[in-house]
Amino acid sequence: MARKGSGEKTRGKLLNAAIDLVRIEGYSAMRVEDVCARAGVSKGAFFHHFLGKEDLAAQAADRWRVNANALFAGAEFHEAETPLGRLLAYVEMRKALLSGEVYEYCCYAGTLVHDTYDSLPELAAGGAQAIDEHAASLEVDIAAAADAAGLRDFDARGLARYTQVVVQGALTLAKAEGGNATALKAFDHLKTYLELLFGPGSRLAN
Amino acid sequence: MARKGSGEKTRGKLLNAAIDLVRIEGYSAMRVEDVCARAGVSKGAFFHHFLGKEDLAAQAADRWRVNANALFAGAEFHEAETPLGRLLAYVEMRKALLSGEVYEYCCYAGTLVHDTYDSLPELAAGGAQAIDEHAASLEVDIAAAADAAGLRDFDARGLARYTQVVVQGALTLAKAEGGNATALKAFDHLKTYLELLFGPGSRLAN
Repeated sequence: MARKGSGEKTRGKLLNAAIDLVRIEGYSAMRVEDVCARAGVSKGAFFHHFLGKEDLAAQAADRWRVNANALFAGAEFHEAETPLGRLLAYVEMRKALLSGEVYEYCCYAGTLVHDTYDSLPELAAGGAQAIDEHAASLEVDIAAAADAAGLRDFDARGLARYTQVVVQGALTLAKAEGGNATALKAFDHLKTYLELLFGPGSRLAN
Repeated sequence: MARKGSGEKTRGKLLNAAIDLVRIEGYSAMRVEDVCARAGVSKGAFFHHFLGKEDLAAQAADRWRVNANALFAGAEFHEAETPLGRLLAYVEMRKALLSGEVYEYCCYAGTLVHDTYDSLPELAAGGAQAIDEHAASLEVDIAAAADAAGLRDFDARGLARYTQVVVQGALTLAKAEGGNATALKAFDHLKTYLELLFGPGSRLAN
Protein backbone atom coordinates (compact mmCIF):
# COMPACT_ATOMS: atom_id res chain seq x y z
CA MET A 1 0.00 0.00 0.00
CA ALA A 2 2.80 2.41 0.89
CA ARG A 3 4.48 1.70 -2.43
CA LYS A 4 1.25 2.21 -4.32
CA GLY A 5 0.65 5.56 -2.59
CA SER A 6 4.17 6.68 -3.37
CA GLY A 7 3.77 5.62 -7.00
CA GLU A 8 0.57 7.62 -7.30
CA LYS A 9 2.35 10.64 -5.87
CA THR A 10 5.16 10.31 -8.41
CA ARG A 11 2.66 9.88 -11.22
CA GLY A 12 0.77 12.97 -10.05
CA LYS A 13 3.96 15.05 -9.96
CA LEU A 14 4.77 14.03 -13.52
CA LEU A 15 1.24 14.81 -14.75
CA ASN A 16 1.30 18.23 -13.07
CA ALA A 17 4.72 18.98 -14.55
CA ALA A 18 3.45 18.02 -18.02
CA ILE A 19 0.36 20.20 -17.60
CA ASP A 20 2.56 23.16 -16.65
CA LEU A 21 5.13 22.60 -19.42
CA VAL A 22 2.49 22.23 -22.14
CA ARG A 23 0.88 25.45 -20.93
CA ILE A 24 4.27 27.21 -20.91
CA GLU A 25 5.94 25.97 -24.09
CA GLY A 26 3.42 23.71 -25.87
CA TYR A 27 3.36 19.97 -26.45
CA SER A 28 5.89 19.87 -29.28
CA ALA A 29 8.59 21.72 -27.37
CA MET A 30 8.12 19.71 -24.18
CA ARG A 31 10.86 17.15 -23.49
CA VAL A 32 10.54 14.16 -21.17
CA GLU A 33 13.82 15.22 -19.54
CA ASP A 34 12.32 18.59 -18.60
CA VAL A 35 9.14 16.99 -17.26
CA CYS A 36 11.25 14.75 -15.02
CA ALA A 37 13.41 17.66 -13.86
CA ARG A 38 10.36 19.80 -13.07
CA ALA A 39 8.74 16.93 -11.18
CA GLY A 40 11.98 15.99 -9.41
CA VAL A 41 11.60 12.42 -10.65
CA SER A 42 14.07 10.09 -12.40
CA LYS A 43 13.62 9.01 -16.00
CA GLY A 44 13.38 5.43 -14.80
CA ALA A 45 10.40 6.35 -12.62
CA PHE A 46 8.86 8.19 -15.56
CA PHE A 47 8.93 5.09 -17.75
CA HIS A 48 7.50 3.04 -14.90
CA HIS A 49 4.33 5.18 -15.22
CA PHE A 50 4.20 6.24 -18.87
CA LEU A 51 5.03 4.73 -22.24
CA GLY A 52 6.43 8.07 -23.38
CA LYS A 53 5.57 11.70 -23.99
CA GLU A 54 2.36 11.06 -25.92
CA ASP A 55 1.01 8.71 -23.24
CA LEU A 56 1.92 11.28 -20.58
CA ALA A 57 0.08 14.06 -22.40
CA ALA A 58 -2.98 11.84 -22.97
CA GLN A 59 -3.17 10.91 -19.28
CA ALA A 60 -2.63 14.57 -18.38
CA ALA A 61 -5.61 15.47 -20.59
CA ASP A 62 -7.66 12.93 -18.68
CA ARG A 63 -6.53 14.39 -15.35
CA TRP A 64 -7.22 17.95 -16.57
CA ARG A 65 -10.74 16.97 -17.69
CA VAL A 66 -11.59 15.12 -14.45
CA ASN A 67 -10.19 17.89 -12.25
CA ALA A 68 -11.98 20.64 -14.20
CA ASN A 69 -15.26 18.74 -14.06
CA ALA A 70 -14.89 18.35 -10.28
CA LEU A 71 -13.84 21.98 -9.76
CA PHE A 72 -16.85 23.38 -11.61
CA ALA A 73 -19.32 20.76 -10.36
CA GLY A 74 -18.50 21.71 -6.77
CA ALA A 75 -18.34 25.46 -7.32
CA GLU A 76 -20.38 28.10 -5.54
CA PHE A 77 -22.02 29.46 -8.68
CA HIS A 78 -24.56 26.62 -8.57
CA GLU A 79 -26.04 28.19 -5.43
CA ALA A 80 -27.42 31.26 -7.23
CA GLU A 81 -31.21 31.21 -7.26
CA THR A 82 -31.98 31.65 -10.95
CA PRO A 83 -30.52 29.95 -14.01
CA LEU A 84 -29.32 33.34 -15.31
CA GLY A 85 -27.82 34.07 -11.89
CA ARG A 86 -25.91 30.79 -12.02
CA LEU A 87 -24.58 31.56 -15.50
CA LEU A 88 -23.43 35.03 -14.48
CA ALA A 89 -21.80 33.61 -11.35
CA TYR A 90 -20.07 31.00 -13.52
CA VAL A 91 -18.55 33.75 -15.65
CA GLU A 92 -17.50 35.60 -12.48
CA MET A 93 -15.73 32.40 -11.41
CA ARG A 94 -13.91 32.33 -14.76
CA LYS A 95 -12.75 35.90 -14.06
CA ALA A 96 -11.55 34.95 -10.58
CA LEU A 97 -9.51 32.10 -12.06
CA LEU A 98 -7.45 34.57 -14.13
CA SER A 99 -4.87 35.14 -11.40
CA GLY A 100 -1.13 34.56 -11.24
CA GLU A 101 1.08 34.04 -14.27
CA VAL A 102 -0.53 33.40 -17.67
CA TYR A 103 0.72 29.81 -17.76
CA GLU A 104 -1.00 29.14 -14.43
CA TYR A 105 -4.46 30.02 -15.72
CA CYS A 106 -4.29 29.20 -19.42
CA CYS A 107 -5.85 25.98 -20.64
CA TYR A 108 -3.96 22.70 -20.98
CA ALA A 109 -6.74 21.28 -23.17
CA GLY A 110 -6.85 24.22 -25.58
CA THR A 111 -3.06 24.38 -25.89
CA LEU A 112 -2.86 20.63 -26.53
CA VAL A 113 -5.49 20.95 -29.26
CA HIS A 114 -3.52 23.72 -30.99
CA ASP A 115 -0.34 21.66 -31.04
CA THR A 116 -1.67 18.25 -32.00
CA TYR A 117 -4.98 18.55 -33.89
CA ASP A 118 -3.31 17.61 -37.18
CA SER A 119 -0.26 15.58 -36.17
CA LEU A 120 -1.73 13.52 -33.29
CA PRO A 121 -5.52 13.70 -33.57
CA GLU A 122 -6.12 11.00 -30.93
CA LEU A 123 -4.14 13.04 -28.41
CA ALA A 124 -5.95 16.25 -29.42
CA ALA A 125 -9.25 14.43 -28.90
CA GLY A 126 -8.44 14.19 -25.19
CA GLY A 127 -8.20 17.97 -25.01
CA ALA A 128 -11.33 18.39 -27.09
CA GLN A 129 -13.21 16.05 -24.77
CA ALA A 130 -12.33 18.22 -21.77
CA ILE A 131 -13.67 21.30 -23.57
CA ASP A 132 -16.79 19.43 -24.74
CA GLU A 133 -17.69 18.06 -21.31
CA HIS A 134 -17.17 21.43 -19.66
CA ALA A 135 -19.38 23.15 -22.26
CA ALA A 136 -22.04 20.46 -21.85
CA SER A 137 -22.13 21.06 -18.08
CA LEU A 138 -23.60 24.54 -18.76
CA GLU A 139 -26.43 23.41 -21.02
CA VAL A 140 -29.03 22.75 -18.33
CA ASP A 141 -28.74 26.27 -16.87
CA ILE A 142 -28.71 27.81 -20.35
CA ALA A 143 -31.84 25.91 -21.37
CA ALA A 144 -33.58 26.93 -18.13
CA ALA A 145 -32.54 30.57 -18.53
CA ALA A 146 -33.84 30.60 -22.11
CA ASP A 147 -37.09 29.01 -20.97
CA ALA A 148 -37.50 31.55 -18.15
CA ALA A 149 -36.91 34.37 -20.66
CA GLY A 150 -39.58 32.99 -23.00
CA LEU A 151 -37.12 31.98 -25.76
CA ARG A 152 -38.49 28.96 -27.56
CA ASP A 153 -36.34 26.42 -29.44
CA PHE A 154 -33.22 28.04 -28.06
CA ASP A 155 -29.95 26.28 -29.02
CA ALA A 156 -28.56 25.73 -25.51
CA ARG A 157 -25.71 23.58 -26.76
CA GLY A 158 -24.65 26.27 -29.24
CA LEU A 159 -24.51 28.96 -26.56
CA ALA A 160 -22.72 26.62 -24.14
CA ARG A 161 -20.04 26.08 -26.77
CA TYR A 162 -19.93 29.83 -27.44
CA THR A 163 -19.02 30.42 -23.79
CA GLN A 164 -16.03 28.15 -24.35
CA VAL A 165 -15.13 30.02 -27.54
CA VAL A 166 -14.90 33.11 -25.34
CA VAL A 167 -12.87 31.25 -22.71
CA GLN A 168 -10.37 29.89 -25.24
CA GLY A 169 -10.07 33.18 -27.10
CA ALA A 170 -9.65 35.12 -23.86
CA LEU A 171 -6.74 32.85 -22.93
CA THR A 172 -5.14 33.30 -26.36
CA LEU A 173 -5.30 37.08 -25.93
CA ALA A 174 -3.85 36.69 -22.42
CA LYS A 175 -0.85 34.94 -23.96
CA ALA A 176 -0.63 37.66 -26.63
CA GLU A 177 -0.58 40.52 -24.14
CA GLY A 178 1.11 38.75 -21.24
CA GLY A 179 -1.74 39.47 -18.84
CA ASN A 180 -5.44 39.22 -18.16
CA ALA A 181 -6.79 42.68 -19.10
CA THR A 182 -8.56 41.71 -22.34
CA ALA A 183 -9.65 38.37 -20.86
CA LEU A 184 -11.36 40.08 -17.90
CA LYS A 185 -13.17 42.46 -20.25
CA ALA A 186 -14.14 39.57 -22.53
CA PHE A 187 -15.88 37.84 -19.64
CA ASP A 188 -17.69 41.09 -18.86
CA HIS A 189 -18.91 41.19 -22.48
CA LEU A 190 -20.08 37.59 -22.12
CA LYS A 191 -22.01 38.55 -18.97
CA THR A 192 -23.61 41.49 -20.77
CA TYR A 193 -24.59 39.19 -23.62
CA LEU A 194 -26.19 36.68 -21.24
CA GLU A 195 -28.08 39.50 -19.51
CA LEU A 196 -29.32 40.88 -22.84
CA LEU A 197 -30.40 37.41 -23.97
CA PHE A 198 -32.00 36.19 -20.76
CA GLY A 199 -32.51 39.23 -18.51
CA PRO A 200 -35.81 40.99 -17.83
CA GLY A 201 -37.48 42.15 -21.02
CA SER A 202 -35.26 40.15 -23.39
CA ARG A 203 -35.89 41.56 -26.83
CA LEU A 204 -35.44 38.15 -28.42
CA ALA A 205 -38.45 36.55 -26.71
CA ASN A 206 -40.66 34.85 -29.27
CA MET B 1 15.94 43.00 -61.82
CA ALA B 2 15.10 39.49 -62.99
CA ARG B 3 17.19 38.01 -60.21
CA LYS B 4 15.56 40.23 -57.62
CA GLY B 5 12.08 39.20 -58.79
CA SER B 6 13.02 35.55 -58.63
CA GLY B 7 14.44 36.00 -55.14
CA GLU B 8 11.23 37.63 -53.97
CA LYS B 9 9.27 34.73 -55.38
CA THR B 10 11.44 32.22 -53.52
CA ARG B 11 11.15 34.24 -50.33
CA GLY B 12 7.37 34.36 -50.73
CA LYS B 13 7.15 30.60 -51.23
CA LEU B 14 9.14 30.02 -48.04
CA LEU B 15 6.99 32.46 -46.05
CA ASN B 16 3.79 30.83 -47.30
CA ALA B 17 5.14 27.37 -46.47
CA ALA B 18 6.03 28.54 -42.95
CA ILE B 19 2.58 30.07 -42.47
CA ASP B 20 0.97 26.78 -43.50
CA LEU B 21 3.24 24.58 -41.39
CA VAL B 22 2.82 26.69 -38.26
CA ARG B 23 -0.94 26.52 -38.74
CA ILE B 24 -0.76 22.73 -39.25
CA GLU B 25 1.74 21.61 -36.63
CA GLY B 26 2.79 24.69 -34.67
CA TYR B 27 6.04 26.64 -34.50
CA SER B 28 7.95 24.21 -32.27
CA ALA B 29 7.33 21.18 -34.47
CA MET B 30 8.15 23.01 -37.72
CA ARG B 31 11.52 22.08 -39.22
CA VAL B 32 13.42 24.18 -41.75
CA GLU B 33 13.81 21.05 -43.90
CA ASP B 34 10.03 20.67 -44.13
CA VAL B 35 9.55 24.35 -44.96
CA CYS B 36 12.04 23.99 -47.83
CA ALA B 37 10.40 20.79 -49.06
CA ARG B 38 6.92 22.34 -48.97
CA ALA B 39 8.17 25.44 -50.81
CA GLY B 40 10.21 23.38 -53.30
CA VAL B 41 13.30 25.41 -52.42
CA SER B 42 16.83 24.33 -51.48
CA LYS B 43 18.27 24.84 -48.02
CA GLY B 44 20.93 27.06 -49.55
CA ALA B 45 18.25 29.35 -50.95
CA PHE B 46 16.52 29.35 -47.56
CA PHE B 47 19.63 30.66 -45.81
CA HIS B 48 20.06 33.26 -48.50
CA HIS B 49 16.79 34.80 -47.32
CA PHE B 50 16.55 33.95 -43.63
CA LEU B 51 18.93 33.62 -40.68
CA GLY B 52 17.01 30.57 -39.48
CA LYS B 53 13.65 29.33 -38.30
CA GLU B 54 12.99 32.17 -35.84
CA ASP B 55 13.78 34.84 -38.44
CA LEU B 56 11.52 33.03 -40.93
CA ALA B 57 8.61 32.95 -38.45
CA ALA B 58 9.11 36.62 -37.53
CA GLN B 59 9.05 37.68 -41.20
CA ALA B 60 6.04 35.44 -41.76
CA ALA B 61 4.25 37.23 -38.91
CA ASP B 62 5.01 40.52 -40.64
CA ARG B 63 3.66 39.18 -43.93
CA TRP B 64 0.55 37.78 -42.21
CA ARG B 65 -0.12 41.13 -40.51
CA VAL B 66 0.37 43.19 -43.69
CA ASN B 67 -1.73 40.82 -45.80
CA ALA B 68 -4.56 40.69 -43.24
CA ASN B 69 -4.59 44.47 -42.92
CA ALA B 70 -4.82 44.79 -46.71
CA LEU B 71 -7.49 42.08 -47.02
CA PHE B 72 -9.78 43.68 -44.45
CA ALA B 73 -9.04 47.27 -45.48
CA GLY B 74 -10.15 46.50 -49.03
CA ALA B 75 -13.15 44.35 -48.09
CA GLU B 76 -16.75 44.92 -49.09
CA PHE B 77 -18.07 45.25 -45.55
CA HIS B 78 -16.94 48.88 -45.47
CA GLU B 79 -19.62 49.67 -48.04
CA ALA B 80 -22.54 49.04 -45.67
CA GLU B 81 -24.37 52.27 -44.88
CA THR B 82 -24.38 52.27 -41.08
CA PRO B 83 -21.59 51.56 -38.59
CA LEU B 84 -23.60 48.63 -37.17
CA GLY B 85 -24.18 47.38 -40.73
CA ARG B 86 -20.44 47.46 -41.37
CA LEU B 87 -19.72 45.53 -38.16
CA LEU B 88 -22.32 42.86 -39.00
CA ALA B 89 -20.93 42.58 -42.52
CA TYR B 90 -17.43 42.23 -41.07
CA VAL B 91 -18.59 39.26 -38.99
CA GLU B 92 -20.28 37.78 -42.08
CA MET B 93 -16.91 38.06 -43.84
CA ARG B 94 -15.28 36.18 -40.95
CA LYS B 95 -17.87 33.42 -41.45
CA ALA B 96 -17.18 33.30 -45.20
CA LEU B 97 -13.47 32.88 -44.50
CA LEU B 98 -14.13 29.61 -42.62
CA SER B 99 -13.90 27.45 -45.73
CA GLY B 100 -11.60 24.60 -46.72
CA GLU B 101 -9.45 22.67 -44.27
CA VAL B 102 -9.02 23.97 -40.71
CA TYR B 103 -5.33 24.76 -41.30
CA GLU B 104 -6.30 26.96 -44.26
CA TYR B 105 -8.50 29.29 -42.21
CA CYS B 106 -6.95 29.12 -38.74
CA CYS B 107 -4.74 31.98 -37.60
CA TYR B 108 -0.98 32.04 -38.02
CA ALA B 109 -0.70 34.88 -35.51
CA GLY B 110 -2.75 33.17 -32.80
CA THR B 111 -0.96 29.84 -33.24
CA LEU B 112 2.44 31.54 -33.09
CA VAL B 113 1.44 33.29 -29.86
CA HIS B 114 0.42 29.98 -28.26
CA ASP B 115 3.73 28.36 -29.10
CA THR B 116 6.15 31.15 -28.28
CA TYR B 117 4.66 33.57 -25.74
CA ASP B 118 6.93 32.28 -23.01
CA SER B 119 9.96 30.87 -24.84
CA LEU B 120 10.38 33.51 -27.58
CA PRO B 121 8.42 36.60 -26.51
CA GLU B 122 9.88 38.80 -29.26
CA LEU B 123 8.61 36.36 -31.87
CA ALA B 124 5.22 36.09 -30.16
CA ALA B 125 5.03 39.90 -30.21
CA GLY B 126 4.89 39.77 -34.02
CA GLY B 127 1.77 37.63 -33.79
CA ALA B 128 0.28 39.81 -31.08
CA GLN B 129 0.88 42.89 -33.23
CA ALA B 130 -1.12 41.36 -36.08
CA ILE B 131 -4.04 40.69 -33.71
CA ASP B 132 -3.76 44.17 -32.15
CA GLU B 133 -3.72 46.03 -35.46
CA HIS B 134 -6.66 44.05 -36.79
CA ALA B 135 -8.67 44.71 -33.62
CA ALA B 136 -7.80 48.41 -33.79
CA SER B 137 -9.11 48.61 -37.36
CA LEU B 138 -12.64 47.96 -36.01
CA GLU B 139 -12.61 50.69 -33.36
CA VAL B 140 -13.89 53.54 -35.53
CA ASP B 141 -17.01 51.64 -36.59
CA ILE B 142 -17.61 50.41 -33.04
CA ALA B 143 -17.33 53.94 -31.62
CA ALA B 144 -19.69 55.25 -34.31
CA ALA B 145 -22.19 52.42 -33.70
CA ALA B 146 -22.13 53.11 -29.96
CA ASP B 147 -22.61 56.82 -30.59
CA ALA B 148 -25.53 56.16 -32.95
CA ALA B 149 -27.13 53.91 -30.30
CA GLY B 150 -26.79 56.60 -27.65
CA LEU B 151 -24.19 54.75 -25.58
CA ARG B 152 -21.93 57.25 -23.90
CA ASP B 153 -18.33 56.56 -22.80
CA PHE B 154 -18.45 53.21 -24.60
CA ASP B 155 -15.15 51.27 -24.53
CA ALA B 156 -14.71 50.78 -28.29
CA ARG B 157 -11.24 49.34 -27.90
CA GLY B 158 -12.49 46.76 -25.39
CA LEU B 159 -15.25 45.54 -27.72
CA ALA B 160 -12.87 45.52 -30.70
CA ARG B 161 -10.57 43.22 -28.74
CA TYR B 162 -13.56 41.11 -27.69
CA THR B 163 -14.35 40.46 -31.36
CA GLN B 164 -10.84 39.03 -31.68
CA VAL B 165 -11.33 36.94 -28.55
CA VAL B 166 -14.29 35.40 -30.37
CA VAL B 167 -12.24 34.94 -33.57
CA GLN B 168 -9.35 33.23 -31.76
CA GLY B 169 -11.62 31.06 -29.63
CA ALA B 170 -13.71 30.06 -32.65
CA LEU B 171 -10.55 28.89 -34.40
CA THR B 172 -9.45 26.91 -31.33
CA LEU B 173 -12.82 25.13 -31.29
CA ALA B 174 -12.47 24.51 -35.04
CA LYS B 175 -9.21 22.70 -34.35
CA ALA B 176 -10.86 20.80 -31.48
CA GLU B 177 -13.76 19.55 -33.59
CA GLY B 178 -12.03 19.39 -36.96
CA GLY B 179 -14.52 21.69 -38.65
CA ASN B 180 -16.27 25.04 -38.58
CA ALA B 181 -19.67 24.27 -36.99
CA THR B 182 -19.06 25.91 -33.60
CA ALA B 183 -17.07 28.73 -35.20
CA LEU B 184 -19.96 29.62 -37.54
CA LYS B 185 -22.40 29.66 -34.61
CA ALA B 186 -19.97 31.71 -32.53
CA PHE B 187 -19.93 34.43 -35.18
CA ASP B 188 -23.74 34.35 -35.20
CA HIS B 189 -23.68 34.93 -31.43
CA LEU B 190 -21.28 37.81 -31.95
CA LYS B 191 -23.68 39.32 -34.50
CA THR B 192 -26.60 38.94 -32.10
CA TYR B 193 -24.55 40.66 -29.39
CA LEU B 194 -23.69 43.57 -31.67
CA GLU B 195 -27.37 43.90 -32.64
CA LEU B 196 -28.47 43.85 -29.00
CA LEU B 197 -25.83 46.44 -28.08
CA PHE B 198 -26.23 48.80 -31.01
CA GLY B 199 -29.50 47.92 -32.75
CA PRO B 200 -32.77 49.89 -32.54
CA GLY B 201 -33.94 50.30 -28.95
CA SER B 202 -30.66 49.20 -27.34
CA ARG B 203 -31.45 48.58 -23.69
CA LEU B 204 -28.03 49.80 -22.66
CA ALA B 205 -28.51 53.38 -23.88
CA ASN B 206 -27.58 55.81 -21.14
